[in-house]
Amino acid sequence: MIEVSDQSGDPAEFPITKRNRAKRMRDRARYDTETVYELLDSALICHIAYVIEGQPYCTPTLFWRRGNDVIWHGSVGSKMLMAQSKSIDVCLTVSFLDGIVLTRSAFHHSVNYRSAMLFGQAQVIEDPQEIDREVEDLIENFLPDRNELLIPATPLERKQAVFLKMPIDEAVAKVRTQASSIEPAENDGHPVWAGEIPIEVRIGRAVPSSTLGPDVGLSPELEWYREGGRLDTTLLEIRRRAGRSK
Amino acid sequence: MIEVSDQSGDPAEFPITKRNRAKRMRDRARYDTETVYELLDSALICHIAYVIEGQPYCTPTLFWRRGNDVIWHGSVGSKMLMAQSKSIDVCLTVSFLDGIVLTRSAFHHSVNYRSAMLFGQAQVIEDPQEIDREVEDLIENFLPDRNELLIPATPLERKQAVFLKMPIDEAVAKVRTQASSIEPAENDGHPVWAGEIPIEVRIGRAVPSSTLGPDVGLSPELEWYREGGRLDTTLLEIRRRAGRSK
Repeated sequence: MIEVSDQSGDPAEFPITKRNRAKRMRDRARYDTETVYELLDSALICHIAYVIEGQPYCTPTLFWRRGNDVIWHGSVGSKMLMAQSKSIDVCLTVSFLDGIVLTRSAFHHSVNYRSAMLFGQAQVIEDPQEIDREVEDLIENFLPDRNELLIPATPLERKQAVFLKMPIDEAVAKVRTQASSIEPAENDGHPVWAGEIPIEVRIGRAVPSSTLGPDVGLSPELEWYREGGRLDTTLLEIRRRAGRSK
Repeated sequence: MIEVSDQSGDPAEFPITKRNRAKRMRDRARYDTETVYELLDSALICHIAYVIEGQPYCTPTLFWRRGNDVIWHGSVGSKMLMAQSKSIDVCLTVSFLDGIVLTRSAFHHSVNYRSAMLFGQAQVIEDPQEIDREVEDLIENFLPDRNELLIPATPLERKQAVFLKMPIDEAVAKVRTQASSIEPAENDGHPVWAGEIPIEVRIGRAVPSSTLGPDVGLSPELEWYREGGRLDTTLLEIRRRAGRSK
């Protein structure tokens, strides 16, 4: 059912099913992997919905993508990780609030946003070599080449982490970029301000640890995190340049 | 089971149950309404987890708080709204990524964040007067006094919206503010930069609609949205000053 597009084996389009079909606002919905992957690669944190004994939970989590898999991790003692490791259905969502849209009519007020909603089943990574790779990528996916500068995780520390991988079975991206032009032209004469207030996630100025010696400067991977830069485009650039997401 | 703190009838602390008890990182968990309400009032968008036929979904949604209720809305045709209107269990989460924490040891890397996870059952608002109030508050909750400047929603437009209300049964807030001081002091001598990269959601410069006449200036509620301001503190201030969240 998944159309294969290239040598990597990644699909070009996700299948459209009952789960991911957009019921409303169909012009905002996209099912191509290019759009979905770009949204994932622009995010550091996702929200994951999962069910324990009939009760849904929604947990914010750091994650990363490789090919058609998304990966996240947590402590062996985490309630979320223990539940998810039993191959239950999960829904992983990333979202970006891009702007508040003000119109002349109350009804047409809205927000501009981008989101991707993924469906699949998570599985615990058991293979030691695969775990080694994820231990590296956990940092590498947003701080390229930093691992080689660090004190590596001890065997005891590594035993405290569990990595979960979810092949993306289905996904839907939604992108709304319209500004106030959405309201009927007959509203134009109504004398109230209309337009968009842009919202952006920005990087602040790096704050050194209070225990940092005066002779220790910023390491090269910090150069990506320019003060005032956007987090989403920075992450996307890191992942594309470093080829981390392939 | 809920301890009542003041004349508003709002609890001072949410009960701690199997659902909301923090299993790990207990020093980060808080159950007081003051912390939970402040996090809710700092957010425009939440993520809601809910279950349809055993399948969890995670949907980003605009919401607002009044007392111990959270309210959101959507189209009558929305799959999410239709499912939630059947009084099913939902979990509503807000989260703020505040910083990326870099340490000398790979293991101690982390993020600073604030989150609140709420549990309850959503119900459709049926009372016409209550619907009137939510139609107003949908805009009022982040654009105070704008309603009186607008073309009001027509009866037909109002019929397209469904409002859902969820009394908060249980909640847990998690706040992590530690910087790199978390790692053992013996790491201090390791010569790599350690500290925090702050992350902030910022307001951009308002972009007028292409159809806006040259004589229509910014309306007063736009003054809250100062270019470069933080969205979370701006929303919190709007809601506290306007008393919208009481």
